[in-house]
Amino acid sequence: MSAYAELKRRRATIYNLEHLQGIATWDRMVNMPSRGSEVRAAAQGELEVLIQGLQTDPAIGDLLSAAGDERLEADDEANLGLMVREQKVARALPEALVRRRSELVGAASQAWGKAKAENDWPSFAEAFAPLVDCLRERADRLGEAMELAPYDALLDEHDRGLTLAAVQALFDPVRAWLPDLIRTVVARQARETVLQTQGPFPVEGQRRVGVAIMSLLGFDFDAGRLDVSAHPFMIGIPGDVRITTRYRESECFQSLVGIVHETGHALYQSNLPPAWRGQPLGEPASAAIHESQSLTFERQVAPSRAFAAQIAPILRAEFGDQPAFDPDNLFRLMTRVRPGAIRVEADEVTYPAHILLRTEIEPMILSGELPVADIPAWWGDRMQALLDIDVRGDDTRGALQDIQWSQGMFGYFPSYLQGAMIAAQLGAAFRQAHPDFPEQAARGAFGGLKTWLGDNVWRHGSRLTTDEIVRRATGRPLSADALKAHFESRYLEVAP
Amino acid sequence: MSAYAELKRRRATIYNLEHLQGIATWDRMVNMPSRGSEVRAAAQGELEVLIQGLQTDPAIGDLLSAAGDERLEADDEANLGLMVREQKVARALPEALVRRRSELVGAASQAWGKAKAENDWPSFAEAFAPLVDCLRERADRLGEAMELAPYDALLDEHDRGLTLAAVQALFDPVRAWLPDLIRTVVARQARETVLQTQGPFPVEGQRRVGVAIMSLLGFDFDAGRLDVSAHPFMIGIPGDVRITTRYRESECFQSLVGIVHETGHALYQSNLPPAWRGQPLGEPASAAIHESQSLTFERQVAPSRAFAAQIAPILRAEFGDQPAFDPDNLFRLMTRVRPGAIRVEADEVTYPAHILLRTEIEPMILSGELPVADIPAWWGDRMQALLDIDVRGDDTRGALQDIQWSQGMFGYFPSYLQGAMIAAQLGAAFRQAHPDFPEQAARGAFGGLKTWLGDNVWRHGSRLTTDEIVRRATGRPLSADALKAHFESRYLEVAP
Repeated sequence: MSAYAELKRRRATIYNLEHLQGIATWDRMVNMPSRGSEVRAAAQGELEVLIQGLQTDPAIGDLLSAAGDERLEADDEANLGLMVREQKVARALPEALVRRRSELVGAASQAWGKAKAENDWPSFAEAFAPLVDCLRERADRLGEAMELAPYDALLDEHDRGLTLAAVQALFDPVRAWLPDLIRTVVARQARETVLQTQGPFPVEGQRRVGVAIMSLLGFDFDAGRLDVSAHPFMIGIPGDVRITTRYRESECFQSLVGIVHETGHALYQSNLPPAWRGQPLGEPASAAIHESQSLTFERQVAPSRAFAAQIAPILRAEFGDQPAFDPDNLFRLMTRVRPGAIRVEADEVTYPAHILLRTEIEPMILSGELPVADIPAWWGDRMQALLDIDVRGDDTRGALQDIQWSQGMFGYFPSYLQGAMIAAQLGAAFRQAHPDFPEQAARGAFGGLKTWLGDNVWRHGSRLTTDEIVRRATGRPLSADALKAHFESRYLEVAP
Repeated sequence: MSAYAELKRRRATIYNLEHLQGIATWDRMVNMPSRGSEVRAAAQGELEVLIQGLQTDPAIGDLLSAAGDERLEADDEANLGLMVREQKVARALPEALVRRRSELVGAASQAWGKAKAENDWPSFAEAFAPLVDCLRERADRLGEAMELAPYDALLDEHDRGLTLAAVQALFDPVRAWLPDLIRTVVARQARETVLQTQGPFPVEGQRRVGVAIMSLLGFDFDAGRLDVSAHPFMIGIPGDVRITTRYRESECFQSLVGIVHETGHALYQSNLPPAWRGQPLGEPASAAIHESQSLTFERQVAPSRAFAAQIAPILRAEFGDQPAFDPDNLFRLMTRVRPGAIRVEADEVTYPAHILLRTEIEPMILSGELPVADIPAWWGDRMQALLDIDVRGDDTRGALQDIQWSQGMFGYFPSYLQGAMIAAQLGAAFRQAHPDFPEQAARGAFGGLKTWLGDNVWRHGSRLTTDEIVRRATGRPLSADALKAHFESRYLEVAP
């Protein structure tokens, strides 16, 4: 066996074991009885260490050098390059650090759930501060290995080559035009009448509606599932991609929009290039591209009169008719803009403000410039300035609202706004190439969009970077322009 | 760290990884979308090989010798002895054989599902014959390592020290008295009136009844689950024990009896000695003891007027009243004896015949004395002789009915009849020690039985052998006497 073939074999083994890890994680979030948590944490920790052992086997270094001398096709060459990169990351992190992070995440997750329920930042801070120290050490080590500044090393993990400077260059224009845009849209919408849907909406009915919408968008239930968890997520591999949602009986929009979002993630994940399954080239290109796919469906496709006309009969069939189910009203419901404290409940226009805040604060927390104890005060001031929302004294609506930090995720938030920008830019390019899409969508035909995304995004896997995918698909580098144009077109130009 | 402590640490790692393997198996049976099967099989195969790698690490041999020289408490000494035994088994099986068996099981499982649907033994035989060859090689190698005959080596895997000669000595008396007993009971019951329950019984309602019955028997839903799968099973570790059942809308007894059976397994599995979690001493004593615990609940506890009086109101609350829910009638329904072709649908009196048949045929298949192609003919003749049932020409009611062979399980069937014998012998000892139990059970108080089983069976884990557990708990070696007495008391002495 050639050195490269042996590297591919080993990488496939790791992929398979990570798939089992994913199943165990999904089960933990969806099914696990409470008393199973201790052994589960220990068991998943063992598997993580075992996988890391395979990743850092010293033999890999020699195999990589030997493979470098082999004649490879272009794609294999790219795959080998990604292997080299993975190897650098894996070897940068000693086993003890991986284990410590995993333990500190366990403690912080538990503390977060309790602190959020009791609005008790100090009790969360006690578990979070040592996790921040550990993440700092991790970022330092990654930075050293990748020759990057610490926070850049974390960005690079989710999106190779991404730096804080690049993120800021992308986000600065948004910071400039967003406040005025929000004010204008809110003032304009104040004159509109919008009917709220009238619950209760039984969970089983919402689930059936969700399944119908997923099927409409092309989700294959022979290759995936829809379940319930406290925090919606998508996980899986082509052939077995699972999404979750949560239901409130009082209304049915939160779960439906969440399902559309996760379905976008699922379609991308399901359609990664099958020939590269198990290899780095077969992985998603970046967190930003992944978010762009969920946001393409959530924000480009769903809030349209064509889509509203598709789901109105589904809602009526399940819950009976009511005035709020009129397609025009559904469209207005899906495009309501109203500043609020909670990121995951935000509309698409105010959403960027939540990411600007987090993109500012994360580097300061990581560097230690902002002590963990001072986060709520900073957060309160900044939220006031950005959205004129007062969360001071209520950290459950402030710095305690997100699950990400408790899970040790730093450097991920920017990808949500990048994703929105990419979705807008891809959306514009797609509409230009397919002017007949609204008419197709009105007939429930989303195949054209899926084919276009498949050709321009999904089939590339990690062969191209975020930037390369965007440039090739849209003919220009990523910028905030398309997002601004999208907001203006949807919220300022079209008759309300 | 002492050598013994290091061995314990390694064993705990293997236990944790096997727990993840269990979760992946449960998920495969309960949740997995069909297109996930290929990667799942590959992934579980990888983990199996990895676990085997840990089990056969050459360093273990040295650690075992070194630990043998350390001063250990009696229980640790016993645990070390079990480690030595596990090591012998692990080292007897080369990785290639483990992998080949896993692949052949995959192929045979698939072939079995199809062949069963189409009553096509030859197509199953094509996949089964190479699996038998592989199992034969496996039995040969195990036998060599354990100094046992091949089939005895398979029995020994499920119940250390068990031999075919011992099984035959236990079963021969049953073969002698069973046919007359069946005839007498059937004739006697012919005079009884039994009302069938009137469906449909919606699945959700059956599930609620199942949950109520599990709770009544002491199942802890913070430490386990009830789900649906094509073939009911129990899996898990203390803190996370899961059982499954299947529902038919036309009747509700199959699922309820199945749930009681699996709850018995679950109570044993949940109450293995916590101090020995992860160690061989903390494992179940044997397949026969495991089956005895499920059968204690299914056949000793459930078919009683006291239990019938408990479940009658649960059934009435869920499905409304009907004459069949009268406790006396429920008791008669649970004690119907009628020879049939299908083992898993058999009543307790005819059940032994199904095991006698399988205990006769398995050694002949393993040795090659009976070619795979000739199994249906032999089966048909023997079923005719044992139960006067004609299955010739319909192998779905004959040799294709069981899932076990397709999964590579040989040497397991005897444990079902041993389990029934043990349950009867334990039941007699318990009733003698607790003459007030029927009165307690009539009030829904099963705590006394659980305490007794905990003290006499569960807490021992694998510290004692099957034989030792039975002797200590009942004061005599295992025999068929208690089973016979149980049948006579339930079916011949009490007024119908």
